[in-house]
Amino acid sequence: MTKINDILTQLRSTELDMAVFSDPVSIYYLTGFYSDPHERQMFLFISEESTPLLFVPALDAERARQSVAFPVVGYVDSENPWEKIKAALPAKNYKHVGLEFDNLILTKYQGLKTVFEQATFDNLTPIINRMRLIKSADEIQKMMIAGKWADKAVQLGFEAISLAQTETDIIAEIEFAMKREGVEMSFETMVLTGNNAANPHGIPGPHKVENNALLLFDLGIMANGYASDMTRTVAVGQPDQFKKDIYALTLEAQQAALDFIKPGVTAHEVDRAAREVIEKAGYGEYFNHRLGHGIGMDVHEFPSIMEGNDLVLEEGMCFSVEPGIYIPGKVGVRIEDCGVVTGNGFEVFTDTSKELLYFD
Amino acid sequence: MTKINDILTQLRSTELDMAVFSDPVSIYYLTGFYSDPHERQMFLFISEESTPLLFVPALDAERARQSVAFPVVGYVDSENPWEKIKAALPAKNYKHVGLEFDNLILTKYQGLKTVFEQATFDNLTPIINRMRLIKSADEIQKMMIAGKWADKAVQLGFEAISLAQTETDIIAEIEFAMKREGVEMSFETMVLTGNNAANPHGIPGPHKVENNALLLFDLGIMANGYASDMTRTVAVGQPDQFKKDIYALTLEAQQAALDFIKPGVTAHEVDRAAREVIEKAGYGEYFNHRLGHGIGMDVHEFPSIMEGNDLVLEEGMCFSVEPGIYIPGKVGVRIEDCGVVTGNGFEVFTDTSKELLYFD
Repeated sequence: MTKINDILTQLRSTELDMAVFSDPVSIYYLTGFYSDPHERQMFLFISEESTPLLFVPALDAERARQSVAFPVVGYVDSENPWEKIKAALPAKNYKHVGLEFDNLILTKYQGLKTVFEQATFDNLTPIINRMRLIKSADEIQKMMIAGKWADKAVQLGFEAISLAQTETDIIAEIEFAMKREGVEMSFETMVLTGNNAANPHGIPGPHKVENNALLLFDLGIMANGYASDMTRTVAVGQPDQFKKDIYALTLEAQQAALDFIKPGVTAHEVDRAAREVIEKAGYGEYFNHRLGHGIGMDVHEFPSIMEGNDLVLEEGMCFSVEPGIYIPGKVGVRIEDCGVVTGNGFEVFTDTSKELLYFD
Repeated sequence: MTKINDILTQLRSTELDMAVFSDPVSIYYLTGFYSDPHERQMFLFISEESTPLLFVPALDAERARQSVAFPVVGYVDSENPWEKIKAALPAKNYKHVGLEFDNLILTKYQGLKTVFEQATFDNLTPIINRMRLIKSADEIQKMMIAGKWADKAVQLGFEAISLAQTETDIIAEIEFAMKREGVEMSFETMVLTGNNAANPHGIPGPHKVENNALLLFDLGIMANGYASDMTRTVAVGQPDQFKKDIYALTLEAQQAALDFIKPGVTAHEVDRAAREVIEKAGYGEYFNHRLGHGIGMDVHEFPSIMEGNDLVLEEGMCFSVEPGIYIPGKVGVRIEDCGVVTGNGFEVFTDTSKELLYFD
């Protein structure tokens, strides 16, 4: 209940008399119970004036009751969930209700408006983002473990490299081994060869591994509720000097950002530290995404490490540092590590070598 | 552009002077271009007064331009997407704008309100759902192919059954083989043994296959943009008579619904056809979810086959029929096929036997 108490403390400093969480990951973070209700309704109601209430689809109710120490109300598909919520909450004229604007779809918003008829609504996303932003020692430990799994997974990918294999063959090898270990990938594994890697959103397919080209691995593991995310680009055969130069430039940009990060600098400045290296070399237009994204229980979470974000970094913030250079038809490189801001720098969660590795 | 023209026809019959699609699957359905922008912005703008506009993150722009025959505008993370959208759309005082209420989160809604400052907003979800609800012959063909893949996947799962294997071991075998075939699962495969199957949202884990118990497989394939979804429950060793009776009852309930479906009956009546079989046997409380869900480009889409849904079925509607009986601590059974409403009945996409199969 510690985190729910933290929410109550936050509510006291706002005008909110009710907080309604709808993001399954927020609910997991706050309660330890996870489910994805899809189009069904699942909400955590937190208010100073009553115990918390977890409202879930009936088929989740049993498992929810085993996970949380406060009331759980389930509903079946044929019931009106909004009426059932209204009946389950203490009858009160709620005036200011917090909702997760970054999660709540309009249909569910309309339903909640019938529950809180007199209320005005404010955005809870900044409050929960802020809570999730600074990771505890326990969370950092879990992220380090997830990072070690990613190192292991990418190593398995390296071992599967062969000109006889396709991108999806290699992905299948990685995911099979990880599944057997009992861990899940945190997102769809990407293995991209040659020109397909030159597309930052390239889609893996039945493309055989190209010779004398680069091969990009972007993958992550979800372990103990925390995600890892890493990218390595390696050489197959003997790529030409231009490709090697673009690799070296990307690595230099990543290192510039990694060296720059410490408490007190801004997300904007970190992005610039990497971007300037690439711009000075004349390839700025080919680095067409932000430098990084927060990571934790979600692979992508707050904050965004990008130009224009003046967020001042603090110890305990975790995010990716992933410059990339994508020159269509020529070469694609991305190098990515996630890590945590420490007292005086940045500690990465993944240790796989970043020297350009060569495979046959 | 046929489907976009259908949208334009729909707009003419409403008050809407602009339709804004945000659901990646809607955009895929309408344009053939798929990307998941996550927290970034991606919208398809359709209006009678100008050509369509696809607005995407910069890193998707190249691929989008190769997919669609109308203007694509990309934005980088450091740009204000709402200002860029406003500049890209014809300057006009849009009065009634359609949004996908079942997809759009409040944060994006707030952004779009700054683009369409004078507008009132209506819900496009019913329009796109209605379009997607009736599948064309081409779509049905694709769903049949996806169904055949599911039959193949579950067969591979059956071959992997062994008391030495865990739930996740079997899942790894299925997913590895499918990945090697170049097809993706349409959702996270579930293999649940014994009491874990008695939880309708049980989570697969390192549980060894139980002997003299039932084993549940719920899986699907995404092929050519269309999903399959099926569930089979099989026997390992010699389950007791009670478990066999519950299996037979579930199958009888499913068959009752399958036999009942034809154009003109309602979703409610189909649900009742299966539910009454289970209720009459005294197990109604253990069938605690709807009978089925629509399926197509999404595994779960419109319509819901459940009590209270008076939707009248028409030829071309595709959905699952999946009664389940879950008695905590005792037994869990679910049997699921997806299919299409035909001129006089229902044709399923999956052919795997539903006699209770026995494995050692």
